[in-house]
Amino acid sequence: MNTFRFEKDGSIGRIILTDNPPGKQGLSFGDTLRNAVIAANRTDIRVLAFTSESGNFTVTKDPAELFAQGHQWFEAFTADVFSSIRMIEELRFPTVASVGGRAMGGGFELLLGCDFLVVTDTTALGIPEVSMGVAPMAGGVQRVAERVGRARAARITLLSEPVKGPDAVEIGLATHFAPAGELSKVTTDLVNQLANGPTQSYAVVRSLLRNWKSSGVASADIAMASITSGLLKTEDAQNAITKASQALKNQQPLPRMTFSGK
Amino acid sequence: MNTFRFEKDGSIGRIILTDNPPGKQGLSFGDTLRNAVIAANRTDIRVLAFTSESGNFTVTKDPAELFAQGHQWFEAFTADVFSSIRMIEELRFPTVASVGGRAMGGGFELLLGCDFLVVTDTTALGIPEVSMGVAPMAGGVQRVAERVGRARAARITLLSEPVKGPDAVEIGLATHFAPAGELSKVTTDLVNQLANGPTQSYAVVRSLLRNWKSSGVASADIAMASITSGLLKTEDAQNAITKASQALKNQQPLPRMTFSGK
Amino acid sequence: MNTFRFEKDGSIGRIILTDNPPGKQGLSFGDTLRNAVIAANRTDIRVLAFTSESGNFTVTKDPAELFAQGHQWFEAFTADVFSSIRMIEELRFPTVASVGGRAMGGGFELLLGCDFLVVTDTTALGIPEVSMGVAPMAGGVQRVAERVGRARAARITLLSEPVKGPDAVEIGLATHFAPAGELSKVTTDLVNQLANGPTQSYAVVRSLLRNWKSSGVASADIAMASITSGLLKTEDAQNAITKASQALKNQQPLPRMTFSGK
Amino acid sequence: MNTFRFEKDGSIGRIILTDNPPGKQGLSFGDTLRNAVIAANRTDIRVLAFTSESGNFTVTKDPAELFAQGHQWFEAFTADVFSSIRMIEELRFPTVASVGGRAMGGGFELLLGCDFLVVTDTTALGIPEVSMGVAPMAGGVQRVAERVGRARAARITLLSEPVKGPDAVEIGLATHFAPAGELSKVTTDLVNQLANGPTQSYAVVRSLLRNWKSSGVASADIAMASITSGLLKTEDAQNAITKASQALKNQQPLPRMTFSGK
Amino acid sequence: MNTFRFEKDGSIGRIILTDNPPGKQGLSFGDTLRNAVIAANRTDIRVLAFTSESGNFTVTKDPAELFAQGHQWFEAFTADVFSSIRMIEELRFPTVASVGGRAMGGGFELLLGCDFLVVTDTTALGIPEVSMGVAPMAGGVQRVAERVGRARAARITLLSEPVKGPDAVEIGLATHFAPAGELSKVTTDLVNQLANGPTQSYAVVRSLLRNWKSSGVASADIAMASITSGLLKTEDAQNAITKASQALKNQQPLPRMTFSGK
Amino acid sequence: MNTFRFEKDGSIGRIILTDNPPGKQGLSFGDTLRNAVIAANRTDIRVLAFTSESGNFTVTKDPAELFAQGHQWFEAFTADVFSSIRMIEELRFPTVASVGGRAMGGGFELLLGCDFLVVTDTTALGIPEVSMGVAPMAGGVQRVAERVGRARAARITLLSEPVKGPDAVEIGLATHFAPAGELSKVTTDLVNQLANGPTQSYAVVRSLLRNWKSSGVASADIAMASITSGLLKTEDAQNAITKASQALKNQQPLPRMTFSGK
Repeated sequence: MNTFRFEKDGSIGRIILTDNPPGKQGLSFGDTLRNAVIAANRTDIRVLAFTSESGNFTVTKDPAELFAQGHQWFEAFTADVFSSIRMIEELRFPTVASVGGRAMGGGFELLLGCDFLVVTDTTALGIPEVSMGVAPMAGGVQRVAERVGRARAARITLLSEPVKGPDAVEIGLATHFAPAGELSKVTTDLVNQLANGPTQSYAVVRSLLRNWKSSGVASADIAMASITSGLLKTEDAQNAITKASQALKNQQPLPRMTFSGK
Repeated sequence: MNTFRFEKDGSIGRIILTDNPPGKQGLSFGDTLRNAVIAANRTDIRVLAFTSESGNFTVTKDPAELFAQGHQWFEAFTADVFSSIRMIEELRFPTVASVGGRAMGGGFELLLGCDFLVVTDTTALGIPEVSMGVAPMAGGVQRVAERVGRARAARITLLSEPVKGPDAVEIGLATHFAPAGELSKVTTDLVNQLANGPTQSYAVVRSLLRNWKSSGVASADIAMASITSGLLKTEDAQNAITKASQALKNQQPLPRMTFSGK
Repeated sequence: MNTFRFEKDGSIGRIILTDNPPGKQGLSFGDTLRNAVIAANRTDIRVLAFTSESGNFTVTKDPAELFAQGHQWFEAFTADVFSSIRMIEELRFPTVASVGGRAMGGGFELLLGCDFLVVTDTTALGIPEVSMGVAPMAGGVQRVAERVGRARAARITLLSEPVKGPDAVEIGLATHFAPAGELSKVTTDLVNQLANGPTQSYAVVRSLLRNWKSSGVASADIAMASITSGLLKTEDAQNAITKASQALKNQQPLPRMTFSGK
Repeated sequence: MNTFRFEKDGSIGRIILTDNPPGKQGLSFGDTLRNAVIAANRTDIRVLAFTSESGNFTVTKDPAELFAQGHQWFEAFTADVFSSIRMIEELRFPTVASVGGRAMGGGFELLLGCDFLVVTDTTALGIPEVSMGVAPMAGGVQRVAERVGRARAARITLLSEPVKGPDAVEIGLATHFAPAGELSKVTTDLVNQLANGPTQSYAVVRSLLRNWKSSGVASADIAMASITSGLLKTEDAQNAITKASQALKNQQPLPRMTFSGK
Repeated sequence: MNTFRFEKDGSIGRIILTDNPPGKQGLSFGDTLRNAVIAANRTDIRVLAFTSESGNFTVTKDPAELFAQGHQWFEAFTADVFSSIRMIEELRFPTVASVGGRAMGGGFELLLGCDFLVVTDTTALGIPEVSMGVAPMAGGVQRVAERVGRARAARITLLSEPVKGPDAVEIGLATHFAPAGELSKVTTDLVNQLANGPTQSYAVVRSLLRNWKSSGVASADIAMASITSGLLKTEDAQNAITKASQALKNQQPLPRMTFSGK
Repeated sequence: MNTFRFEKDGSIGRIILTDNPPGKQGLSFGDTLRNAVIAANRTDIRVLAFTSESGNFTVTKDPAELFAQGHQWFEAFTADVFSSIRMIEELRFPTVASVGGRAMGGGFELLLGCDFLVVTDTTALGIPEVSMGVAPMAGGVQRVAERVGRARAARITLLSEPVKGPDAVEIGLATHFAPAGELSKVTTDLVNQLANGPTQSYAVVRSLLRNWKSSGVASADIAMASITSGLLKTEDAQNAITKASQALKNQQPLPRMTFSGK
């Protein structure tokens, strides 16, 4: 199975997936993912990017390697991976995934836990489990559905139809399209923007989005006052408001600001 | 009113709507629908297709025939039809609707209970109730909204604007578009694919989609482990995994597989 | 801050926003909004339109004016504005917003409480709060998300990317696009249509849409029978059914009907 | 299996369960229940009472009779029964169940669909399915839990512990306790009170309770205005308000009023 | 109708209800309530207590005064009152209601918006609306149900059975019971405790309770991290942790602490 | 901080908490809990019991040890603990907690993730966080509320009032009361019963309870058919049905059965 490692570069964190040869490093996808996420959560990074050395996101080159462990092992394995995906969704800073190749099954379900997904012409995203007589077990069905709606989700999940990069942005499965050859640049620009952005504002809005997607508008309405409380007092807000107010008075556009995350 | 009948052809079931002349067969839409759905649920079919002899899906040619029964009768009638629609949503195999003509009001609400909806150039879908001073009473408003989002739903339901076939696929109200003259072929191909597909995988994914649409991502997350449990042990999964694993090892594309439903 | 006033013209109500010079009329945005909504709720109007004298919808020309009041004042202020927005959503007749210029932040969040939003080429809609180190506090995040889905909402809310008029209709953030120079005409036509429409049917369908957006399909299903009960007995329904039945029997299109709201 | 029949006595309806000898009348529990509920829904009754000739509510004297039909038949059977239970919950008038003996498994799940449950010293209620290696399939787990809370529900459902009549009232599983020998009288009094009560008020409050139990307080809050709209105009409200106002002015207690249901 | 006024005494706020003679002060219940709540929200109080000069909480001595305004006026009136109740629930400090007499209908629904309810032997709480052929329109049904469960809620709301003070605590409808003659003392002690308590901790826990009651455990789980974030940095937390740590090290009980609210 | 270890004894698993001296073993509560839960999930046990060597469940003897790590560390720590609690709730077998002493704060929140809680006269359960100027951050507020209702939850969480063993059972915070000196026996009996019970039935009912508590009755209704599907075919069901059917035919009580878990 493939394995993850966490790297930290200033306020930017990266979780990188390495494709291992079949059987080479044992059943480490779940354990290395969990460890990488826990490590990321304990640092002071302000954005986390998911990339892959091969450009692809898959669990293993050899599914038989997985299924040979028995159904009880497999159900514990997917429960463990899914627990890590929810930990990603609950991180207190934004997350970005970037895929130039194939993100399939559990590999794609992992990326569906991120806030932003950057794709390009060579990207293919899919949920092939049904075509193999099984089903997504790490949250993929409901996360595809909330992004693309019921009709398209029926084709992607029930009929296992893959989605190419440009279509993924068109239908709302991905957030950013990078022209050919610019995947790295578009991703880096977005990651840098987020690393220098208002980290606490991001946390608040991400929480509202999660509340909405899980429990609807009324639930987000109810949590809103508590979640946004105190934000106005942050260092970032105080500085930005001063600058924005000045710009608006002078009828100038808002300046691109840099934030401390505090 | 129009009437339904159920037919079984091997693992394929069909519920067929017949347009009756006004007043000809009494108030049978609700009773024949319920009986057809119960009959379908008791067989061993693996897919259920809804078609209409006339190409249209409407409750009656003469609305006055309905409303003349009084509001108490009418409310009991729609409650009964809606109960059948929810039984359709809860069937343990996938469902397909195919419309070449007009599906309006209660006729369209019925089709909104299906997983797949195949349309063509001559198709028109609509919720005209508001333009008649009443309102959809069989689940149409919320099922249109979950498919096309709030803005388009406001126009379709509040303003009673109908949607043509090609637009229906574009906005996610329908799942499949059939070019002119190919409605029957596209529908048949889809029905055959589903009849030979992994019935138990379909059941699992359909249940996750229903849980998501009714209670959000968190609810589907919670039900997921139980719903997917045991799937790996099915005959279909065991066979498909073996074939898929072989193909992936040989770097071949996944073969189109046939499943037993077991 | 800017101020609102309510005007009534027969069965049409209007809440009009006036841009005041900075500091000119004190902190009146919240108070005048609440009073206008309460006034509207107490009349017998059948539609409520939100317009702005300047064409823009913003809270103030000088954000410093707001933030200078302190965070406790500001949190009470936004709670108060948000309470008015929910009162708008709960009005018993449909609501229309029309924007030819910029609707930003709290001004845009207000319009997201309306059923219909008419835009044109010069319209710009946005949630710039995050770019100022704060966050939307009047329901904007969840109401953008329910309209455009998670991926686009992430860009609009987390990255503060504004949306132009034509794109707003394309992605479902607005309901109606008016060609250049026709904003007023398109808005007026829609408002007149609604003012002469089946007010009680609108109330029923709006309630179902709100139930769906807040609690999902199952919740709307459960409330549906109660919400729709009695509608068939209204004067509007009785008249319209008679006319519609006649038209259908004669195989004529449904006539555009005028309703009394009763 | 046991069978149901519907009887109408003025504004009171009754669905009565007859214990049949094993194998005697085929697999009719589901069909006769559905037919009885549909019949009740089509009349003008104002209350529906569930009683049993033997005093017990069980599906069959011989479970082997059920399970011998195969798991696919059994799953269709329980889906059908559960569909009837939800139809009971959605009736537009209140429902009363009265049990002097044992209500177990599917028989008890049926009664959990009623608004009121009258018990006595000899009553025993239970969910024995887990102790037989299966599980409640007609909504019993969630309906017990919403009545008695998580801790007691764990014992009743997971450990299959039955509940005696007096305890059932104490913990909120039943609503009314009848002293020894008075089950019939207490039930009749309650049924008569409801049959002469404000039927439309009951419908409104029952709908709010269902909305609350399914989707929480916020959802009921949202549906409330629509559900309660128009109630003040009913004949019953007009008459009762006049009488109540008079009594309050005279500082007298409210008179027990009789309502027409209109 | 009765009228409210707001008073501030240091960090304690009070909203006091005055019983006016019939017709004396016009239709001011809703307006004076809204103004009092808005006033309370704009101060720096840390607890808000609801009391009544007469000991009773009712809307009016003469219901005919209310209903004579017509159903449209009445529906707007209850919508307005309900909006104020939700504003109470959303205040950023705890709320206490104290009732020695009768709290009925809209008066009781108001108190159901408070965190704490202190009662005594002479207290009576009730929802008499159904017995008058109408229904609670300000949130009472769902708020009684969430406190006492479905079975007791059915009796209190559908059958209009009132609840006496001691029973109200027993079944969870009220939080505190005051022995005869001590209502004022028990209330004052509680209000003082809250006024000197950790205001920001209260805000966090109140928000979690509201999220739970509206959208269930999963929704509160999702909002929890955001809602609790930053609490550890408050002045109150820093001081209390130091003292608690010291006490625990010395194996002493936790000292009763006084908090600044900051 | 205190530390956990996992032990397996046939089909019974145990997670045991050891109280370590302050500072002795570093910050290991979270890491050892997660590892113990993952280990439990990977075995073939059929029940998991939580016990403590000291009889108490607390995070640390010295809270200053925790808070000294800084608020960012602390928030990551609680997020990690909470992630383990949810993994406990999602285990595929039942869980039992047994407390003879004090379970406070995070220690009590952990036990709230279990299905059964056995207490005795010397037990004390509590959420003291608010009294320390902070708030429960591992799900305690919402899990206390769902067990004891809103009124009692307000006292336990907002006012930090502890609950003694007998009261805990009375109000539904705990499931089983053990008389003095019998805590171990009552716990062992329950654990043995569960270890020999119908593991797959337990999994189904636990999933329905979780669905209900998170998303209400309607959500559990929707998931029910999928979650219960296939249960009738298990070895345990087949054997038990045969025995039960035989007993019922002979009018004997159901025999206490032993199950294989398959």
